[in-house]
Order: sequence, then C-alpha cells, then structure tokens
Amino acid sequence: MSDATIPAHEPPSERTRLKRYKWLADYDPKTVEEILDAAPLAHIGCMMNGVPFVTPTFFWREGRHIYWHGSAAGRMFKVLEDQDICLTVSLLDGLVAARAAFNFNCNFRSAMILGRATLIKEDQVKEEKLRNFVNGLIPGQWERLRPVTKQEIAATAVAYMSIDEASCKVRVGPPEDNDKDYEFPAWAGVIPIRYQVLPPEPDPRNMPGIEMPEDVLKFRLG
Amino acid sequence: MSDATIPAHEPPSERTRLKRYKWLADYDPKTVEEILDAAPLAHIGCMMNGVPFVTPTFFWREGRHIYWHGSAAGRMFKVLEDQDICLTVSLLDGLVAARAAFNFNCNFRSAMILGRATLIKEDQVKEEKLRNFVNGLIPGQWERLRPVTKQEIAATAVAYMSIDEASCKVRVGPPEDNDKDYEFPAWAGVIPIRYQVLPPEPDPRNMPGIEMPEDVLKFRLG
Repeated sequence: MSDATIPAHEPPSERTRLKRYKWLADYDPKTVEEILDAAPLAHIGCMMNGVPFVTPTFFWREGRHIYWHGSAAGRMFKVLEDQDICLTVSLLDGLVAARAAFNFNCNFRSAMILGRATLIKEDQVKEEKLRNFVNGLIPGQWERLRPVTKQEIAATAVAYMSIDEASCKVRVGPPEDNDKDYEFPAWAGVIPIRYQVLPPEPDPRNMPGIEMPEDVLKFRLG
Repeated sequence: MSDATIPAHEPPSERTRLKRYKWLADYDPKTVEEILDAAPLAHIGCMMNGVPFVTPTFFWREGRHIYWHGSAAGRMFKVLEDQDICLTVSLLDGLVAARAAFNFNCNFRSAMILGRATLIKEDQVKEEKLRNFVNGLIPGQWERLRPVTKQEIAATAVAYMSIDEASCKVRVGPPEDNDKDYEFPAWAGVIPIRYQVLPPEPDPRNMPGIEMPEDVLKFRLG
C-alpha cells in the first residue's frame, strides 16, 4: 500500500476517455486530487444482483490511494474485489443560465476513478486507516474518543483502490453561448452554489462541562 | 408516460432491500419524492465497457417519473435502454461526531431508483420535457430564452424512468452511542452542512439594460 509516484498527465486508459463535454476532460493527477480532497462524499458504482448500484459513502484519500469503510456485513464489500468498480466524486458549484436552453449548464468539479478495490485484512491496518479517516475530518478527534474495540474493528470493512485510472472534469465561469446569441435580450449569468458548514450543535447528552474541541471548527467542505 | 398511482408503502422488490443501515431504509413514496425534489443532481450507474460507470447529471421529476438529458452522442445514452440501471440522489446534511469512532456518522438523505430507462424519440415531447427541466430550476426561464432549434433538440437525448422501484434512507439528529459510552468524556455533536445558493452573478456580456428576472432568485437547493 505504498504510494505510487504520480503518473504522467495523460489518459491512463481508453475507457477513461469520456465523450460528453470531452473538452472539459482532464487527467491531471493534481486536479484529480484537489477534487477528491474537496468533498468527503463519493458515489461508488458496483454490480450487485445484476444492477450497477450507486452507493453514496464517505471516502478519504491518502497519497495515491482512496479509502472507504462500512459494515463488514454490507453486501457491497462481499462482491467488491471481484469486479471493476467506479468511484465518482462531484461538487456542484453553480447553475449556469445561458441565453439558449441548449447552453444551460452547471459549474462543477467531478473526478472518476476506475479500477479494482482491495479489502484490508489486518486489524491493525484497518484501525490505522480508520484513524486517518476520522482525523482527516476533525484533526485529533480519534485520540479524544472512547478507544475502539476489537469487535468494532472486526465489524468494519475498509476498502481501498489506487488512483491510477482517473479522469476529472471542471467547469467554471460564465455561460458560453453561440456568438450570435449574445445579441439576444435574455439575462444570462451564474447562480453560485456551495457547501456551507454551520456552527456545530453539541449533543444535548454531552457530559456537564465537556467543551467543544477547537478542531471541530476546522471541518471544511468544497 | 402518464403518471402511475403511488405504490403502497412497502419494498417494491427484493433487490431494493439494502443491508447497510437497514434500520434507516424506507420505501415511502412521498419521502422518496421529497429527496428527489431537494437536489437537481443525480448519480447514474450504467454498465459501459464492463465497468459500472457512475455519471453525475442533472435530473428532474415529473410525477412518478424522473428525467435526465445529455448529448445524444454521449455513450451513456447508447447503452441505457439495454440494461437495468440505478439512479441515486444524495444530500449530505451533517457530520455526526459520536463518542466512539464506530458511531461516527453523517446526517443525510438519499434515494435510489432502480429500473429500465427509455429514450424519448419524439422531438415535440423532448422539447416539452426540456422546458419542464429549465422551468423547474428557474420558473418561466424557457420562455425568456432564444427559442430552441430543431438541430439542438436532435442533438439532445432525454431519458426517463419510473419511480416504481425505489428506496431511500434518511438520518437526522444527534449521535447515537452505546448506552455506557454516554459517560465517556468526549465531546459529541453534529456539524450541520447545507447547500448555500449565493447571489446570482450576471454575465459580463449581458446586453446593456438587461435586468435579472425575479425568478432567478427563486432557485433553491436542499
């Protein structure tokens, strides 16, 4: 699980060449990583019972690998290693209102990783990865929690895959209309969208005198 | 494409019974519709070249059907009708910091629709559906735009599927820890997350004197 060096800035495989908005397609590893780091939520495509199920899940990145976890009893983890899967991360950054409906669009960032996933077998490695997950969201949080038990580690599956086969798309900026449409008298513009993180809400059942760690305020999205 | 009546509040198929967080699984059609209506972005799972690709895309709901569109040249639309697909909509509502890492969670809403999609063939129906899409985001916007052309309609694919086979999951509220962990002195709570719609940014190339339609301010998310 050591990190591979970042591959050259070119499509790693034919199947990552996306046709729609192909002018937006990019294979720059740094751009892919920036998108992966902007959102903790991924959608994983995995064949189960003959259907390409799309499952939303937390994920995190460590170098050139991405990780996710879940209940070891979950059906995805039972079939994950036997097939190629797809993990997609997307952020909606705005609605792009053009002068022509055909050019209606959105500003967005998305990254798509293809490949095979592997389940971590060693409990110690699983625990280390889960600590990285929790501390990646809230620095130092793992060490403040009730220590994890062997049973909890055993009940948790942790999967990872390499970021070798990846593509991304990014759209920014104002609408793009046909030249002659710029004289059409319709309002055009962008309605920006972003994730907002609101002030933390302490659990009413917190013990008296428990203070919120400053690290809780470091959680950011987008 | 008339709307079917809403099915009874029970799982429509064995394959929609999700194992992970099964206590959260719900099949209430109204809850599914509320989730679908809260976000314009879906992730579609579709087998292409032997991989369950997950493609983020705008979608919209009309009664008991969901629709999405894209370039007619896009590879998804070439294989869409030949297989079962999955359309997932998810909203991240908060980070749930529990006293035990095992109970670390998120507040979220997600809906998953399984089934077969159909491409609309008639140009007139396609145009009607695209108008519903645009006007669903910004009321009355379609009528303000440069009229759509036959070539644009021909270059656009519109797909739909029924919401018959659907499930959803919703998590709200504070952390849920094991009884004895409530005495562990760790801060617990929720960090709420939501979509924020910022003030519209007019295109610098708008014609002089063009005013922003009030309907542009009606766009909401979440």
